[in-house]
Amino acid sequence: VNGDFSLENLPFGIFSRDGERRSVGVAFGDDVVDMPKAARARTFDGIFPNPVAIFESPTLNAFLETGHGAWRATRERLQSVLRDKARAKDFLVPRALARMHMPVEIGDYVDFYSSIEHATNVGKLFRPGGDPILPNYRHIPIGYHGRTSTVSIADKVRRPSGQTKAPDATAPAFGPSRQLDFELELGFIVGLSNDEGRPIAPDDAADYLFGIVLLSDWSARDVQAWEGQPLGPFLSKSFATTISPWVVTLDALAPYRVANRPPDVEPLEYLRVDAPWAFDIELSVSLQSRTMQQARTEPKEIVRVNFRNMYWNAAQQLAHLTSNGSIVRPGDLLGSGTISGTEEGSYGSLLEATSRGARPLALTNGETRTFLEDGDTVVMRGAAARPGLPRIGFGELRASIAPFA
Amino acid sequence: VNGDFSLENLPFGIFSRDGERRSVGVAFGDDVVDMPKAARARTFDGIFPNPVAIFESPTLNAFLETGHGAWRATRERLQSVLRDKARAKDFLVPRALARMHMPVEIGDYVDFYSSIEHATNVGKLFRPGGDPILPNYRHIPIGYHGRTSTVSIADKVRRPSGQTKAPDATAPAFGPSRQLDFELELGFIVGLSNDEGRPIAPDDAADYLFGIVLLSDWSARDVQAWEGQPLGPFLSKSFATTISPWVVTLDALAPYRVANRPPDVEPLEYLRVDAPWAFDIELSVSLQSRTMQQARTEPKEIVRVNFRNMYWNAAQQLAHLTSNGSIVRPGDLLGSGTISGTEEGSYGSLLEATSRGARPLALTNGETRTFLEDGDTVVMRGAAARPGLPRIGFGELRASIAPFA
Repeated sequence: VNGDFSLENLPFGIFSRDGERRSVGVAFGDDVVDMPKAARARTFDGIFPNPVAIFESPTLNAFLETGHGAWRATRERLQSVLRDKARAKDFLVPRALARMHMPVEIGDYVDFYSSIEHATNVGKLFRPGGDPILPNYRHIPIGYHGRTSTVSIADKVRRPSGQTKAPDATAPAFGPSRQLDFELELGFIVGLSNDEGRPIAPDDAADYLFGIVLLSDWSARDVQAWEGQPLGPFLSKSFATTISPWVVTLDALAPYRVANRPPDVEPLEYLRVDAPWAFDIELSVSLQSRTMQQARTEPKEIVRVNFRNMYWNAAQQLAHLTSNGSIVRPGDLLGSGTISGTEEGSYGSLLEATSRGARPLALTNGETRTFLEDGDTVVMRGAAARPGLPRIGFGELRASIAPFA
Repeated sequence: VNGDFSLENLPFGIFSRDGERRSVGVAFGDDVVDMPKAARARTFDGIFPNPVAIFESPTLNAFLETGHGAWRATRERLQSVLRDKARAKDFLVPRALARMHMPVEIGDYVDFYSSIEHATNVGKLFRPGGDPILPNYRHIPIGYHGRTSTVSIADKVRRPSGQTKAPDATAPAFGPSRQLDFELELGFIVGLSNDEGRPIAPDDAADYLFGIVLLSDWSARDVQAWEGQPLGPFLSKSFATTISPWVVTLDALAPYRVANRPPDVEPLEYLRVDAPWAFDIELSVSLQSRTMQQARTEPKEIVRVNFRNMYWNAAQQLAHLTSNGSIVRPGDLLGSGTISGTEEGSYGSLLEATSRGARPLALTNGETRTFLEDGDTVVMRGAAARPGLPRIGFGELRASIAPFA
């Protein structure tokens, strides 16, 4: 992740130093800009009232409410200050000394299902025989509400217990999940609230979406298979969702916007968008077992996929979500859904990569995996990079699997 | 609702008077106890530190965090004070002068599906041909996460727009729902948080659940039918959930706890509960069209049903919800699911009462209804009452349908 946090990136997060209170920080190289300190030096005067109070907040929510013009102006002001190393050094804290916290307080978390390749793979596994893509898929950005109390930046994910039933069992059983999985996603952070009853048009989405984080939608596949009908996934997902701590702004990613994937079927008017809402972001997942860690064997990359091929984009998701009059609020989280490709090595979950455990994955030291084992560490990374353009990286999302205690 | 708010009830809510700030109030007859005022008169000294600050809060959340012992002691202290009318009158505000607000800030809202009669009726309508009750139903308190940003005490519900597809249509269409429905439910308010990774046993649920409100899970049936697979209801429900403003405590309802419904199949150990968690609460829904309102025709009662027959109870729901290690937080809302019986007139939704519109319901003035029309007012009421016991009422949930604007 070297060079993820260039001057052209400047992602926002919440940090604290030993014994001090949480406040807003911006990642810059190996440092964090102490935003309250920068604000007290009048760096942000004239952008919005009371920048010190806003950057002393323990979440980004107050800053998000200032709106897109202020987000952009703050980033530009920072860029000009940080170009002058001498002037900047008063505000910089070594990143190694910064403890990171949840960047936002989430009101609602919606997880979408927007990779048609992922939906196809899952449909084949969970509903063998039928058409893997249901008739509504190409008309509706399918999604569901997830649990907000368990969204965190934790570096540990506890294996959940849950109810499962093997196909040949006469009755269900309760115990630790034996099919614990990750899902590689990106999470869009909502910056601004709409008014109740006022849907957000896809073309206005840029005013409402602030930035992007890496997201893992941890999933217990055995629980999911048994509980999922008729109302969808519940406890198989609600035990943990983790995100990366630095929110990369859409402004920073502007050079990496690429043409939208042409839809198979023209969507209804309220979902049409001309502006490019696909992003050329390269993502990876690596896995390191406890044995590999002990032997200091590097994590093995098991997934590599680009975000640009999603069937539905975030502007459409936001438009759909608010099309019934619903309110979104600053800090709301929209998960993209698992990001998968069509080829071996591009599947964003072990469910897909191992065909639900039927084809184990080989690690580098002779071990194999169907699903995650206790002590495994999962590392997700992402970056937009192209020759001649600055690298805009996401840092990493890293979590180890702990036993159910 | 006369006599709903007896001395033995004393439900908690959030109110304000003209131009004043929100604070905690307790309903007593036709009055509201101004709790900060009562606290300043040292009524609650010794129960928990800083009662004035806690009752000056704009939500009940701070009070909920004080725990079951404090909830009970507060109610008992109030009962002794209110018996002395002369002493009490300083704290009383006429209910007519009190404006009500959302009683809690909700972290997560889960809607269950715990009436097997409702599940049977819906299963027959949405999946004709198959067994209406899926194999998991008698093992799992089925539920899903709902949207918290649209939970309110509003007296107006806006008809949502949404995507629908008639069975014979070649493509979906977008527009105002033509199958807008209510769902009669009770909502349990969580009082206390568990620790992450520490499930709540059903026998401990009384320490974590504070009270109950009336709840309507407004539903767009045409949207639900088209969007619902494979991840469950989403925009068909997320546009509005309304609750009644007064939270009736479980302590007040203690005399109305009745034996649990015997399960058809013995549940797994983690869902077993001996204590009575069924409640003898009689519920009703009445409907008044705009024409009836103009003619001053009383709302017609179209649903009457008792809560005691639910297949799954709130202690089991809470145990299930936390069984994977998930955290609940003060203010969390658990919807019971639509409360339905087996007979005509006991169905908690129009979907069931009209067989998805096939058998219109007659109102008192010659009008009929399949689903809700603009200008209709829905009134939900509930009370526990039995000869020789004090009446514990819920007041009412009242909402009128507004057109999509």
